[in-house]
Amino acid sequence: MQRIFLTGLSGAGKSTVGRRVATLLNWDFVDTDAVLAEQAGKTVGQTLTEYGEERFRQLESKALHSAAQHERVVIATGGGIVIAESNRTFMHEQGLVVYLRTETGTAWQRIQAHMHTEGQQAERPLLAGGDGQQRLRELLATRVGWYEETSASITTDGFTSEGVAQQVIVSALAHGQLLTDDSARISSNLRLTGAFSQAVIEWGGFCQLPEALQALGTRGRVFVVTDSSVGALYAEATRSLLAGAGLDPYIFTVPAGEGSKSFVCFQQIVDWLVEQRAERSELVLALGGGVVGDLVGFVASCYQRGVPLVQIPTTLLAQVDSAIGGKTGINHAHGKNLIGAFYQPGLIFVDPAVLLTLPERAYCEGWAEIVKYGVILDAELFAMLENRLLDLERRDADLLTQVVARCIRLKMDVVQGDERDGGLRNILNYGHTFGHALEATTEYGTWLHGEAVSIGMEVAGRLAVARGLISQDDLLRQRKLSQAIGLPIACPGVDGAAILVAMQHDKKVQAGRTRWILPTRIGQAQMYSDVPLEQVREAVAAVCQPQGVLR
Amino acid sequence: MQRIFLTGLSGAGKSTVGRRVATLLNWDFVDTDAVLAEQAGKTVGQTLTEYGEERFRQLESKALHSAAQHERVVIATGGGIVIAESNRTFMHEQGLVVYLRTETGTAWQRIQAHMHTEGQQAERPLLAGGDGQQRLRELLATRVGWYEETSASITTDGFTSEGVAQQVIVSALAHGQLLTDDSARISSNLRLTGAFSQAVIEWGGFCQLPEALQALGTRGRVFVVTDSSVGALYAEATRSLLAGAGLDPYIFTVPAGEGSKSFVCFQQIVDWLVEQRAERSELVLALGGGVVGDLVGFVASCYQRGVPLVQIPTTLLAQVDSAIGGKTGINHAHGKNLIGAFYQPGLIFVDPAVLLTLPERAYCEGWAEIVKYGVILDAELFAMLENRLLDLERRDADLLTQVVARCIRLKMDVVQGDERDGGLRNILNYGHTFGHALEATTEYGTWLHGEAVSIGMEVAGRLAVARGLISQDDLLRQRKLSQAIGLPIACPGVDGAAILVAMQHDKKVQAGRTRWILPTRIGQAQMYSDVPLEQVREAVAAVCQPQGVLR
Repeated sequence: MQRIFLTGLSGAGKSTVGRRVATLLNWDFVDTDAVLAEQAGKTVGQTLTEYGEERFRQLESKALHSAAQHERVVIATGGGIVIAESNRTFMHEQGLVVYLRTETGTAWQRIQAHMHTEGQQAERPLLAGGDGQQRLRELLATRVGWYEETSASITTDGFTSEGVAQQVIVSALAHGQLLTDDSARISSNLRLTGAFSQAVIEWGGFCQLPEALQALGTRGRVFVVTDSSVGALYAEATRSLLAGAGLDPYIFTVPAGEGSKSFVCFQQIVDWLVEQRAERSELVLALGGGVVGDLVGFVASCYQRGVPLVQIPTTLLAQVDSAIGGKTGINHAHGKNLIGAFYQPGLIFVDPAVLLTLPERAYCEGWAEIVKYGVILDAELFAMLENRLLDLERRDADLLTQVVARCIRLKMDVVQGDERDGGLRNILNYGHTFGHALEATTEYGTWLHGEAVSIGMEVAGRLAVARGLISQDDLLRQRKLSQAIGLPIACPGVDGAAILVAMQHDKKVQAGRTRWILPTRIGQAQMYSDVPLEQVREAVAAVCQPQGVLR
Repeated sequence: MQRIFLTGLSGAGKSTVGRRVATLLNWDFVDTDAVLAEQAGKTVGQTLTEYGEERFRQLESKALHSAAQHERVVIATGGGIVIAESNRTFMHEQGLVVYLRTETGTAWQRIQAHMHTEGQQAERPLLAGGDGQQRLRELLATRVGWYEETSASITTDGFTSEGVAQQVIVSALAHGQLLTDDSARISSNLRLTGAFSQAVIEWGGFCQLPEALQALGTRGRVFVVTDSSVGALYAEATRSLLAGAGLDPYIFTVPAGEGSKSFVCFQQIVDWLVEQRAERSELVLALGGGVVGDLVGFVASCYQRGVPLVQIPTTLLAQVDSAIGGKTGINHAHGKNLIGAFYQPGLIFVDPAVLLTLPERAYCEGWAEIVKYGVILDAELFAMLENRLLDLERRDADLLTQVVARCIRLKMDVVQGDERDGGLRNILNYGHTFGHALEATTEYGTWLHGEAVSIGMEVAGRLAVARGLISQDDLLRQRKLSQAIGLPIACPGVDGAAILVAMQHDKKVQAGRTRWILPTRIGQAQMYSDVPLEQVREAVAAVCQPQGVLR
């Protein structure tokens, strides 16, 4: 149905949150008060004062119907809209009703600040006269039953409007509001000797998780592991989604961040599974980004020598890269991913719409891996990104779905040719030789993985130019695309010599030789083991020079 | 060549050790002094005194040649045999020369104790007169160069004669002395989706380890992990064997015992590999019994997401069972093998002759798994054991080689049909439902795994009789064979109720149902999930009754 109605007291933040939600979804935003005012030709306060409450409520219902005429709309409703049963029924029939729950103290503060800014426009006759907060309390007492008669309640106290907007989107996802009639479920299969992995990709498909698990034969318990960031948004939604479908979810949360790819977290999850007496036929579900996917995938590979695994990647990087191909693992003090397994998830459940709740920087870094696919494997994909930068920025449903599905297919094809990372798969390492070294040198504290890879692609691109493999123009295209996306292409001031040393420690180094993946044109790359150190030194120096960049 | 010459001072223990080595090997034992005395018709002392040293040495050489007439012989030589270059050359040409190195103090004490027991028979004219130990010191000073001109030196001080005998056998193994012209290398392949594992089985084949590794493409470093017991005997032999062939062995030792199947040891080995910067193409070698095989196999499966693995099982149980099939893992405080992987060793390098150095109880317990194979899969094997009990007891080369190779093939066939332990492989669990529970109940401190399995087979056999699946006679055959081998068939006084509870916690329990593997005749078994608790309780009570056994 693609409609979200926000209800709640005056001062609950319905308009602010609603606008943000609409922006994130690329939907329209309508405020029923604004519609009413326009239709009545007076402000809301004037209308109420002049016509009386009964007439006002009639006009308000009319405004609600007008606001909901189209789909793909977020509607902030007047505080009293829930009083009429017909309104409540209408909203439930027409979309998702989300109640923004707010302490009256908080609401009253917001209203006062608002009145101060907007003066008469923000008048609330119902709150006029006497103690406004006391009046709010009375209103809440009479309406709370109606407010709570809703699909989703979100507590707004203590959250920014951005945080509340994200929660609204998760509610919308869980309730299937982002599914459209013409939304297509794309399915991609990875067939390996002894393993089979299916990815399903659907915008707004998150709500269909229970059916997807049941299709795998899952009954009863499901062991979900997530991290504190993703869990804050998705844990409860996942729990009620699964429980609502008759499954029995257990949820374990690890701290967000690379630090959780550790022996300690590994053991904690194992201990938890042992405590629950998880059986070897029961499902483990990794809900999160690359850290959660790698960590939980490794646990699933080891617990009872392997239990069924489902990956639900929630970051762009995880969706297009880390959740695909079965590489799992944890870090060692002396190196990333030094302990792990190749273990294929039976299902990779991908909803690109969850990317709407991703912070900007995490969203951006994911694109580095996508640019990488374009450069090494898919000139058409690369050109598509160049042409749809606006869609990319606004997280357009069609673009994201297409790109995510395409990258998953590209990665699956590579993995299918080289399950155990013996040769062909090396190509995916484009930008990573330098990238890993940069991350290690800066102790994983400065650059996100995708950012480091982006700078690494600049280094590799420069080497490719130096060796006459690609033209300066090709390098410029790569550089411009990365910059347009907001990815770094240099790390000014970083110690280039330290990076050269760190590259010697890369897991892929064989017999002491650093191997480079270099493009031979946009859409094609090869491995080279004979890149002279002097050329490498120059390319590294170029991206590290303190003045910054460089054209 | 199958000859072992023991050299060293009087009092080095050449005769005692030599007799023990000969017994272990099922070879003859000859003492050159005894041959000389017989040929001369006088005691050694008389001969020396009457004929003088020159003539004595000639007779001694003659005795040496007589002693070495046949193969499969352990020869204890006179202390001065090394004086003549011709003797030294002869011995090196004819077999393995092992020098038993001893402090003169120790040697002198032994001689005195010996003279006290055997009187004139043990006279040593060369030591006569004055300070015997001083005389020994002088003899050693003149001879030590010749003694050390040898293939193997063993320090005997601080070791029992049994311990020294074991070291002699390891030397013989490492130097190929147990290989015969007609010894056959049996090869068995396990072909799985995505994995291939080859077992080579050869009596005395240990010396061919370097060639076997090189055939896998191994060059340079080899990372060997062993435990303190196996390492004490085999670490140095393995090191010099590999180094001698141009490989570069690194050896890590964990404490012997089930306690090493732990997170702690897992991490220690990983740390060691990381420290050595082991690369993903380099080989990890598990040298030991089931604990080492499971632990190291799991490390190999995880380190860098999998490095090449070779298993060298040194116990009977590991050779016929745990080293085959790719099950690896470590224990959790709440259950055995709860964390692990299916990971196939590229090579399982099996020399049944290493079983000669196995303590009696560990040797015995291994037979439980072999009896198991007989009962569930191979009536012919079962009958062979019944008929060759003497060979079994004396660790006969032919019997052990045949049985080990046959069991490996049986297990590979089962695993081939069910790599991931989904169904068919369950049959191997015969005796283990009760066995695991008994081990858990007694905290892994009382019964060895094989012993617990043996008692478990008695329980399962009783259930099979109770359900009319096999005859009382079949059960009697199983019971008699186990008892003849020296395996327990009861655990008098153990708390049967506790075992019933522990069986509920077995990893194989599915949806709360205990599954039983029961024989349907000798050589065939099936899984049953419908065994009534009352029957189980009775069978368990029978083996637990305090009075002991029961017929």
